[in-house]
Amino acid sequence: MSSVLVVGSIAYDSVETIHSKRDEMLGGSATFFSTAASFFAPVHVVAVVGDDFDDNDLEFLANRQVDFSGLQKQPGKTFRWGGIYSDDFSNRKTIFTHLNVFEKFQPHIPAQLRQTPYVFLANIGPDLQLNVLSQMGKPKFVALDTMNFWIDRDPETLRQVLARVDGLIINDEEAKMLTGENNQILAMQKIEAMGPKVLIVKKGEHGAVLYYRRKYFYLPAFPVENLIDPTGAGDTFAGGFMGYLAAENELNHDTLRNAVVLGSALASFNVAGFGVDRLKEIGREEIFARYEKFQELTRFEFLERI
Amino acid sequence: MSSVLVVGSIAYDSVETIHSKRDEMLGGSATFFSTAASFFAPVHVVAVVGDDFDDNDLEFLANRQVDFSGLQKQPGKTFRWGGIYSDDFSNRKTIFTHLNVFEKFQPHIPAQLRQTPYVFLANIGPDLQLNVLSQMGKPKFVALDTMNFWIDRDPETLRQVLARVDGLIINDEEAKMLTGENNQILAMQKIEAMGPKVLIVKKGEHGAVLYYRRKYFYLPAFPVENLIDPTGAGDTFAGGFMGYLAAENELNHDTLRNAVVLGSALASFNVAGFGVDRLKEIGREEIFARYEKFQELTRFEFLERI
Repeated sequence: MSSVLVVGSIAYDSVETIHSKRDEMLGGSATFFSTAASFFAPVHVVAVVGDDFDDNDLEFLANRQVDFSGLQKQPGKTFRWGGIYSDDFSNRKTIFTHLNVFEKFQPHIPAQLRQTPYVFLANIGPDLQLNVLSQMGKPKFVALDTMNFWIDRDPETLRQVLARVDGLIINDEEAKMLTGENNQILAMQKIEAMGPKVLIVKKGEHGAVLYYRRKYFYLPAFPVENLIDPTGAGDTFAGGFMGYLAAENELNHDTLRNAVVLGSALASFNVAGFGVDRLKEIGREEIFARYEKFQELTRFEFLERI
Repeated sequence: MSSVLVVGSIAYDSVETIHSKRDEMLGGSATFFSTAASFFAPVHVVAVVGDDFDDNDLEFLANRQVDFSGLQKQPGKTFRWGGIYSDDFSNRKTIFTHLNVFEKFQPHIPAQLRQTPYVFLANIGPDLQLNVLSQMGKPKFVALDTMNFWIDRDPETLRQVLARVDGLIINDEEAKMLTGENNQILAMQKIEAMGPKVLIVKKGEHGAVLYYRRKYFYLPAFPVENLIDPTGAGDTFAGGFMGYLAAENELNHDTLRNAVVLGSALASFNVAGFGVDRLKEIGREEIFARYEKFQELTRFEFLERI
């Protein structure tokens, strides 16, 4: 059992969907990530909140041994984001983004966390991601998230980060944008050449693909009949993925595939409730039961070869 | 081992892609279907060609024991279709459709074929599909293809056909259109309620989903690096699927899942060449090797449960 460090955001999210509306829920990449990862391994969070932040909001994570010694509290307000999903959840529109204290976030990795073996750089500027890496010792596995905004705005720095990480977790649009390649197979090979030897491309309702050492692994999305709030699904996936890898502390096709399945299982719970509501309710039993459901959804074998 | 009957089109296709261009290739739903199905089971073709048709074009199928006793030759020209694919193959534009003798096609099922246990009604008008069913004895399994055009133009008759078939093989857009339901899971449940107890929704590069007796089965598309010509992929899939089912002659989760995998394997060969070029070259060894590749692409299991 190893441990994982995440550098990302903690926010208050306001979300509106066809079903209902919720204001000022606990959100942010570091929140979703650490909630998911905490089912499998010890997690250290490096993030920033404002002086308006209610510490009780993180109590459920502290109870799960999530370590907040890297959480900064700065004068000012906590990051706020508001968005509205289209009726079929295929699109979302950002209503507002108030970065607040997150705008000047300078990640500082406390001395006692610099040797953490598993590191997840959530979606922050590539310059900050580089800065975090320069503070770390020699992590065993560093994975990265990014987004269209950074691919467009700071591709040079992003390339430098990519050359230094072990894994990249992005969506299909971002993979296209990063490589200029429409064929997903070729796009994945191009990304591998940029640095990350483990690549996961998320395809929303179509599931995810893992590319590692010339092998592809495809997993469908879990069929969710009642989507409530997809916010944070990507970070929840990453949390489950990294948490399980840290727990196994061994990188091979089997551990990576299982990590993708468990990340997807956690994401499928996440979208069935607002914010982290559903993730707060479940335990490892539910997660492993869903792992088995994923096997039922994908298994086939010849009884006899005709 | 049982046998399968297909009612569909035989055409000469002209296809242009980013790579190259080919004119007047043998095509049509019955052609792709019977080529694929013939790897597993005896096939009977009911279709129409014009007096310009070159019988040598079907010789490779006759050599595979495909039976053309139901092929009509009518005065006039054979069905012609021409299309052009977008550079990334995500779209195709029809350049021309000359139905020719296919316009007045009246399927006649010869007496000796009316007891064929497996029947595939390719994409023809729902009125003709009903007419075929009225000529058949009591088939064991009837599957149907259709398209947006018929869903829009003759939904009433299509509903009547759906109520009488065992299986439906359509794409995701058609499933949405048929049910008015954006959520694919709910759309599949609605379609089952219309009649077909076996439902396959094809999602192009995202693979296919099988729904049968409250269980879903997801299979990715085989990762094809060098797409040449996607024409006929759907009918090739259906041919592999129905041919294998007829060979096994038993309907359960295992045979249906394997049929989906073999249909997908055949489709993945089909798109790697123009028309039926690639399907002519391969044999059962290649197909079963690809079945095993599909297992490699999708398998996962715990070595130990953490």
